[in-house]
Amino acid sequence: MAQPQSWEQRAQEYSMYGFTDLPSVHERGTVVLTHGEGPYVFDTNGRRYLDSNSGLWNMVAGFDHRGLIDAAKAQYERFPGYHAFFGRMSDQTVMLSEKLVEVSPFPRGKVFYTNSGSEANDTMVKMLWFLNRAEGRPQARKVLTRVNAYHGVTIASASMTGKPYNEVFGLPLDGFIHLTCPHYWREGRPGETEQEFTVRMAKELEDTIAREGADTIAAFVAEPVMGAGGVIPPSKGYFQAIQPILQRHGIPLIADEVICGFGRTGNTWGCETYDFVPDAIISSKNLTAGFFPMGAVILGPELSDRLSAAVEEIEEFPHGFTASGHPVGCAIALKAIDVVMNEGLAENVRRLAPRMEEGLRQIMQRSSNIGELRGVGYMWALEACLDPASKTPFDASLSVSERIANTCTDLGLICRPLGQSIVLCPPFILTEAQMDEMFEKLERALNKVFAEVA
Amino acid sequence: MAQPQSWEQRAQEYSMYGFTDLPSVHERGTVVLTHGEGPYVFDTNGRRYLDSNSGLWNMVAGFDHRGLIDAAKAQYERFPGYHAFFGRMSDQTVMLSEKLVEVSPFPRGKVFYTNSGSEANDTMVKMLWFLNRAEGRPQARKVLTRVNAYHGVTIASASMTGKPYNEVFGLPLDGFIHLTCPHYWREGRPGETEQEFTVRMAKELEDTIAREGADTIAAFVAEPVMGAGGVIPPSKGYFQAIQPILQRHGIPLIADEVICGFGRTGNTWGCETYDFVPDAIISSKNLTAGFFPMGAVILGPELSDRLSAAVEEIEEFPHGFTASGHPVGCAIALKAIDVVMNEGLAENVRRLAPRMEEGLRQIMQRSSNIGELRGVGYMWALEACLDPASKTPFDASLSVSERIANTCTDLGLICRPLGQSIVLCPPFILTEAQMDEMFEKLERALNKVFAEVA
Repeated sequence: MAQPQSWEQRAQEYSMYGFTDLPSVHERGTVVLTHGEGPYVFDTNGRRYLDSNSGLWNMVAGFDHRGLIDAAKAQYERFPGYHAFFGRMSDQTVMLSEKLVEVSPFPRGKVFYTNSGSEANDTMVKMLWFLNRAEGRPQARKVLTRVNAYHGVTIASASMTGKPYNEVFGLPLDGFIHLTCPHYWREGRPGETEQEFTVRMAKELEDTIAREGADTIAAFVAEPVMGAGGVIPPSKGYFQAIQPILQRHGIPLIADEVICGFGRTGNTWGCETYDFVPDAIISSKNLTAGFFPMGAVILGPELSDRLSAAVEEIEEFPHGFTASGHPVGCAIALKAIDVVMNEGLAENVRRLAPRMEEGLRQIMQRSSNIGELRGVGYMWALEACLDPASKTPFDASLSVSERIANTCTDLGLICRPLGQSIVLCPPFILTEAQMDEMFEKLERALNKVFAEVA
Repeated sequence: MAQPQSWEQRAQEYSMYGFTDLPSVHERGTVVLTHGEGPYVFDTNGRRYLDSNSGLWNMVAGFDHRGLIDAAKAQYERFPGYHAFFGRMSDQTVMLSEKLVEVSPFPRGKVFYTNSGSEANDTMVKMLWFLNRAEGRPQARKVLTRVNAYHGVTIASASMTGKPYNEVFGLPLDGFIHLTCPHYWREGRPGETEQEFTVRMAKELEDTIAREGADTIAAFVAEPVMGAGGVIPPSKGYFQAIQPILQRHGIPLIADEVICGFGRTGNTWGCETYDFVPDAIISSKNLTAGFFPMGAVILGPELSDRLSAAVEEIEEFPHGFTASGHPVGCAIALKAIDVVMNEGLAENVRRLAPRMEEGLRQIMQRSSNIGELRGVGYMWALEACLDPASKTPFDASLSVSERIANTCTDLGLICRPLGQSIVLCPPFILTEAQMDEMFEKLERALNKVFAEVA
């Protein structure tokens, strides 16, 4: 086989790209990365980028964290692989489950491992379908999520995801119902207060349950702050308004903490930041600081007890992934949790979040084309607008956010275009100086692109 | 939180067990493993087990392979995590895709990464659903697999799996159709030759396509040798009989090589052993020798071209997992492929497979309760039978295979009960002496249990 010459050509020759704007790749080539230092990554041409996307929200300790590297290396020396089937599992797996329940909002609970957030959400749905059949409610299969929610890309978790792009697959499957996105700035009606908006969101949930039938619904699944939807914190009082409705109808509330969990909002859990306790937690990404593919379903006491009882009846729960509870992943997760919670990372987020908000607010105020700044902790979005006053977006054909992101890349800053917003979710280790570098490059890119299109 | 004392108690307190016989756990406790040496693993009580299950088919280079450990450690030092979205990816990812196409049966092709075989099968179905919509056949969504096939545990890949246990989830979903398992010994009719049986399997496929409508079918997916179905090689000429039918109707043949791929049957691919070239390959497990969670869809030239063209139309393929193409996984896979193909592992399987077959055949001949020995390479099953002549199984309530496996565990041998068969799929590094240890312990366990139940 004749080998093409450049890294870029080799990448294109053999890769089926996912979540990639192909016109950008055709025009600009693939960025092939070789290594990292702190929050920076380096490509094959020696160019350095400040990755304000934390990889994909997940590399929260940066790209060369000594403690995490050493934890991974030590476990590879000790026990480089095993599963968790047939009543066998590694000691690391036992310790991580214990730790996850300890740091969870639950007084007790049980843990099931997967390799990703997609698999964890998919598993959660299977668990509930199984439980409902076992308890005599086989029709209770519908899953409620929200427009703009992101829960993954398996056929079931993509069906939970409330993004229009899934239409190209003929998804969602039947029975996956998407409620209104609780984004007050975009979805609020003229004259409606944020409180009234929240009441309307709760009313929509109540109406949906009445229309579909409470006994046909398996779960309501929600990210505390929507991530890939474009960093959308809930409207004020949202979870306090909806949880009583769900409880009244016996519908479990599942918190998808894949992005929020382990420090992103400044606390261990997003549900802590928004002051509610769900029935189960879906975790991934930060769980291993991106050093290993891992997801987990953490069941609270009630679901844990009911599921255990139902499983005992059939003597075996016929579900599990080959690498569920992989000893290296578990050893890394144990270290990552310790690093985030006890080595100053979550603290850094709490300390510098106000500075990040303030810096982005100043950028917004100096620009005529930012409609909204929204976020919490170390997850923020700036929404580009042709006319902020009327919230009028740019013409979609202008690909404004992609142009901003590409211009940032040229300046050595990685950020993420989502819809017409620019998302900034830097590693938790980001220092004040690095934050200033992010602000400065971002503002230069915004000014350049807005000058071209506005 | 008061901490329970033993590893076994801690495991049970915090784990939701999957694919685990709970009565065995209640009676015997959880086996908590700490480390491994070659094909052996050790538990917290210092007990040693020869793992003739290779972990879960995947730890083919054993549990402390120096080259793989060093490759993992080196990549953690170099670049411990990145994704493959937005036209960025690591250099390791580029190199692995190139290598996978090089060692595939395809003259060219493209690779898409996942974290597991489940995700890879789920992704393959999404790819075909997308492709068929894009090409004007949105109704072409049905997936054909076989009874006893195992393709994973996400809601979609569990629907592909032809095991009765999925009924507890209310699966399969509509449109997932399971054909007869091509197991001549069990499914052949009285007086039917193996050749006639194969013709009947092909006829069933032809009839199914006629009944369902070729234009409603997205794919036929098959393991070259069924793994978790109980090591079931296809009947003679099976793939040669069915592939022309699929081709005539324009239905892609997808080879699920999660277990067979990279050496298990003695060749790089199971489809090589059974002499056919599929339209795409699903890979996982051996791909990283179990050292990292990874799956891959390897598309052959036609699917690659058609999918690429369809994706260019919409400018972005909206699919991908956070850890798709993780640099550490890719570095490990590059090393694992080299170790299996070039450092004597596949060669060891080819050299010793006849010895393994012969040893198991002798055990079968010395026993009155083995109905069939079947397998290839380093994957074999012995089928326990109350009466081998009439192929009468033991009463299911006796849990014969679980008892055999538990007795083996007591003797320091891990093997896997599947239905009423005992599966042996040792690491490729297994030596002659270790093979003899496996034979000796297995036969002792068989004799003990058959003496109790027969």
